[in-house]
Amino acid sequence: MINRLVIVGVGLIGGSLALALKKAKFVRNIIGVGRSEVNLDIARDLKIVDQVVSNLSEAVVKADLVVLAAPLSTTRHLFAELRPILSEKTILTDVGSVKGGIVKDAEEQLGSLFCRFVPGHPIAGSEAKGAKSAFAELFLNHHVLLTPSSQTDSKAVSLVEDMWRAAGARVSFLNNLEHDQNLALTSHLPHILAYVLMNLVEDKGGVDKLESMMGGGFRDTTRIASSDPEIWTDIILANREEILSAASQYKTRLIEFIEALEVMDGNRILGLIKRAKQARDSFVIPDANNA
Amino acid sequence: MINRLVIVGVGLIGGSLALALKKAKFVRNIIGVGRSEVNLDIARDLKIVDQVVSNLSEAVVKADLVVLAAPLSTTRHLFAELRPILSEKTILTDVGSVKGGIVKDAEEQLGSLFCRFVPGHPIAGSEAKGAKSAFAELFLNHHVLLTPSSQTDSKAVSLVEDMWRAAGARVSFLNNLEHDQNLALTSHLPHILAYVLMNLVEDKGGVDKLESMMGGGFRDTTRIASSDPEIWTDIILANREEILSAASQYKTRLIEFIEALEVMDGNRILGLIKRAKQARDSFVIPDANNA
Repeated sequence: MINRLVIVGVGLIGGSLALALKKAKFVRNIIGVGRSEVNLDIARDLKIVDQVVSNLSEAVVKADLVVLAAPLSTTRHLFAELRPILSEKTILTDVGSVKGGIVKDAEEQLGSLFCRFVPGHPIAGSEAKGAKSAFAELFLNHHVLLTPSSQTDSKAVSLVEDMWRAAGARVSFLNNLEHDQNLALTSHLPHILAYVLMNLVEDKGGVDKLESMMGGGFRDTTRIASSDPEIWTDIILANREEILSAASQYKTRLIEFIEALEVMDGNRILGLIKRAKQARDSFVIPDANNA
Repeated sequence: MINRLVIVGVGLIGGSLALALKKAKFVRNIIGVGRSEVNLDIARDLKIVDQVVSNLSEAVVKADLVVLAAPLSTTRHLFAELRPILSEKTILTDVGSVKGGIVKDAEEQLGSLFCRFVPGHPIAGSEAKGAKSAFAELFLNHHVLLTPSSQTDSKAVSLVEDMWRAAGARVSFLNNLEHDQNLALTSHLPHILAYVLMNLVEDKGGVDKLESMMGGGFRDTTRIASSDPEIWTDIILANREEILSAASQYKTRLIEFIEALEVMDGNRILGLIKRAKQARDSFVIPDANNA
């Protein structure tokens, strides 16, 4: 059990982590820090955190562990703020959806503290936001990806690994580049595909006009278009290169499918659909209610 | 209450309709017809239909209503088979996902019976298939689209409308072209987008390699890739022109998004995401478990 955990950004992710770690008795005292006072008041009222502190340097005093659960663009600034105030004993981690940029920023900004920063990314969430949407089971059986470098202190890695295990998650290790390439394909590009589809629906008269023609397939395919726009603009800009590469490959594959339809190549279409179905049928994730 | 209903193709759709109409006491006697004896035996054992008949002409004798719930490519042949054996009193409807081609085929094949054919399309289903997956609530609060022409007998339309209302559905009317254009956008193209994404994942090492990086967003976006390949090849080929048009517009929109990312136009990206989110947030459908 650790004594003092600071969560910067008590939203769905930060708040759910706090609840899970309390439940698992992994931590004695949790301090919430954030920009929105209204949200922090909710977090305290819902007993998600034990204490709310508005000043970051006050919050991190004697902290064993600091979790940065703020939007990506905020995290960059936090490193600079943290450098002069963080004790040499405090371990730092984050939950950002893109790792390459974060790690580069951390290396530049944290100086000698960089070895105590363990980059992390829980593959869990939903289109809901804020402390009010937090729940202790969000990470249960979900994957968490950690991308420490050769410079990262192995005790720091162990603590962050233990933390996520305590929250019920399955921890995997990989490097930043691999992370960002794969997430571009499995998460960032799918968000863009959903945004584009919703915008095309808007062009064609919108949901009001087309609602009677939208079934569960449409609903599920586009659910992620409801995610927070600011957070997702951040993510997409931060992983520009890998997303452009995935999008370009996707476009080539889409054109291939369309060309098979143009020439009415039923066998080719059937083959492409069968391959897709076989891949999709092999994929099962534990909980149908979160992302 | 009608006396005798024949369902040709007792799968998820046909079977669920049978169960719903039995429950609503809309029909006294339901006869199942189909190509698969195994499936028909299941349908009889599960009491989805009262009787199983292997011969179509025997089945349709004295039928008040015949529902064609077979795959699209089979439906075409059924019209030719039905013409010489269908009584002038029997009303005919279908559940096909594309209406233009079906109606054209019906007009050519049914001759004088064409006025008693009411084209229909329930916006419900799932990636499950066969009589074993049928359930009475599948259509509850879901939309059903009917596309009768000026030639269609109004009493036939009323009966089919009453049937779907009895099954709990909401009935809307529109013309074939509008149906096919809109469904290309809200259903057929989203299937293709999911197939292409799954195939790209396969190119990149497959689900085994990438599973730890796939969350609920990926799961939901690609669920429809698990649909039946034969049925969906049929649908996509049958609505070729409208899908090509929707796909071309989609491609233009996708390229727009990608170009905004290429030049790091954060405001443009934020605007596109906000528009998509607003549209998606306005869309709610009743039941989270079927498509």
